[in-house]
Amino acid sequence: MKINNTPYRTIWPTADNQAVEIIDQTKLPHIFTTLRLDTMHDAERAIKDMEVRGAPLIGVTGAYGVALAMCADVSDAALEEACSVLLEARPTAVNLRWGVERMRAFLAPLTESERAAAGWQEAARIADEDVEINASIGRNGSKIIRSIYDNKNDVVNILTHCNAGWLATVDWGTALAPIYTAFNADIPLHVWVDETRPRNQGASLTAWELGQHGVPHTVIADNTGGHLMQHGMVDMVIVGTDRVTARGDVCNKIGTYLKALAAFDNDVPFYVALPSPTIDWTLQDGIKEIPIEERAAEEVTHISGLCDDGLVRTVQVTPKGSNAANFGFDVTPARLVTGLITERGVAYQPDQQKLEALFK
Amino acid sequence: MKINNTPYRTIWPTADNQAVEIIDQTKLPHIFTTLRLDTMHDAERAIKDMEVRGAPLIGVTGAYGVALAMCADVSDAALEEACSVLLEARPTAVNLRWGVERMRAFLAPLTESERAAAGWQEAARIADEDVEINASIGRNGSKIIRSIYDNKNDVVNILTHCNAGWLATVDWGTALAPIYTAFNADIPLHVWVDETRPRNQGASLTAWELGQHGVPHTVIADNTGGHLMQHGMVDMVIVGTDRVTARGDVCNKIGTYLKALAAFDNDVPFYVALPSPTIDWTLQDGIKEIPIEERAAEEVTHISGLCDDGLVRTVQVTPKGSNAANFGFDVTPARLVTGLITERGVAYQPDQQKLEALFK
Repeated sequence: MKINNTPYRTIWPTADNQAVEIIDQTKLPHIFTTLRLDTMHDAERAIKDMEVRGAPLIGVTGAYGVALAMCADVSDAALEEACSVLLEARPTAVNLRWGVERMRAFLAPLTESERAAAGWQEAARIADEDVEINASIGRNGSKIIRSIYDNKNDVVNILTHCNAGWLATVDWGTALAPIYTAFNADIPLHVWVDETRPRNQGASLTAWELGQHGVPHTVIADNTGGHLMQHGMVDMVIVGTDRVTARGDVCNKIGTYLKALAAFDNDVPFYVALPSPTIDWTLQDGIKEIPIEERAAEEVTHISGLCDDGLVRTVQVTPKGSNAANFGFDVTPARLVTGLITERGVAYQPDQQKLEALFK
Repeated sequence: MKINNTPYRTIWPTADNQAVEIIDQTKLPHIFTTLRLDTMHDAERAIKDMEVRGAPLIGVTGAYGVALAMCADVSDAALEEACSVLLEARPTAVNLRWGVERMRAFLAPLTESERAAAGWQEAARIADEDVEINASIGRNGSKIIRSIYDNKNDVVNILTHCNAGWLATVDWGTALAPIYTAFNADIPLHVWVDETRPRNQGASLTAWELGQHGVPHTVIADNTGGHLMQHGMVDMVIVGTDRVTARGDVCNKIGTYLKALAAFDNDVPFYVALPSPTIDWTLQDGIKEIPIEERAAEEVTHISGLCDDGLVRTVQVTPKGSNAANFGFDVTPARLVTGLITERGVAYQPDQQKLEALFK
């Protein structure tokens, strides 16, 4: 997608294929700056310090980390060392494990002389595959936006929660892929961006990437969506997800469930966009079976932003002595989901049968 | 209620009956400080600069403003001047109009020599009446908390949204009155405090006043309530309201509707506490008939809080160039309301008949 009229991915090899560059996402939305990763340890730091974030992007960064290690040392020992260092950068990231393990499995059988070039090619292939999956989600989802526009013949208002945009992937994003695809096809649309407390990924990342690509949007407090839907100001909701169960329950950023309830109560279609590896076929009842991460209370009690003096500062909003709780995700039951938009197509009124029909 | 173990009201006459004192609510929750209002113009400023806020408290401050004017000049001209200046301090505040007009109607027929003492007494009466109404709401609502406790025999978890606490009234509050009453009666309880974006009245005012009175509480992002209810962590919801229609639709701070939906979906009782003048008998369908105020976008894009250096600063959370929208309230349809807790009693599954039975 574009930043200030220039097309970007979130990670790309330098012209000499000796390093990769990334967008430093810790500085967004106030400062846009790129970082050059020359070594495997640079990639490790980028993952650890969240200069890259979003499951797919972390996986690709891990893969490039292995490729960078092979540029310096093609030995078996170096390959093992790189994989183990990178996996430790964020031990719970499933996509990181997947990306690194795929590189290891691909490179280990090769001769040492093949590994540098092959590693580079395989990492690029992983990145391209991510782009292609998301582009497919975009094509499938944009047809839904197109049909709403054909019926309405006026600007399509889409509400989204958190950041499931291109910044979380290599390009296109998941929830935002249909929006970018429709926008690029000149369908008039406008996005309501939930700010997404406590970490504000909507107000910072989603608003920033939509703004840079030129997509009309308005930031709202997370409390606002119900009122907008009661008054016909939302034509559809599209969100991303971290995990979908076999029957179609959706685990996503905390607050998603409340928007799904409001959409259901007001007959607003509620869509979830996802690449198929997000489906966990071993789970059924998301509310009972998916453990919800509790994060640091400071994410609720403190907020960072740009001060008048140009510095990014952190302020405390709660009184001294008041505790806070910070649940990261919630689960939206499948009964509230109009459709799951995947790279293979859309599963409407999802259940296990419909999901299996699409994927098995 | 108590601040640091000392009982307070939000407004009280000085010992010599020459002035009133208030809590400077613009400084909360980070600094507790009181202000002395010596003149009618001090009262005007306190209302205009929101040193006092909350409809009932604004009304009482207006009444004391008229009383202060009479301490300086008991003429008809001074009475008219005081009423007109105070009404202009917040022209849309219904309670302010009510409080000032009641003072005018009471004082105008009196002789000049009676007005100073009588004004002071009438303002005190208005304040005491507010306290008594809220104490009644507290008694009626605490019976509900008591019965939940009797069934559960464990800590009662109550979720509230925004600030409908004693800081918005003279004492007790509306939504928090049942909570304080139950807490004072030693019923074990814990309050989930929605931070209430964009103005954060929950994270700042509700958390502060509960903390000062010693009530166990936890601040949460507004996105969290649905997840808590899915997991049995909320036994009841109590919120305040700005306006209730004759059939029981509830206009309250933006986001209230989302919590009502989640409560309904999870069989959690959803209560609204209100003094009866909040009922607008001329309205039926709150969603169609109540206009919703749009406030400044800066309340969404910027947040104030305490910095490490001890200064209160404002930071911008959105990227430059991203617009924001700020709807102040939403409407919860009566079908989602378990009961309206009033000074006369509780209207369960409210409709016009039940409300009229209570009040007519």
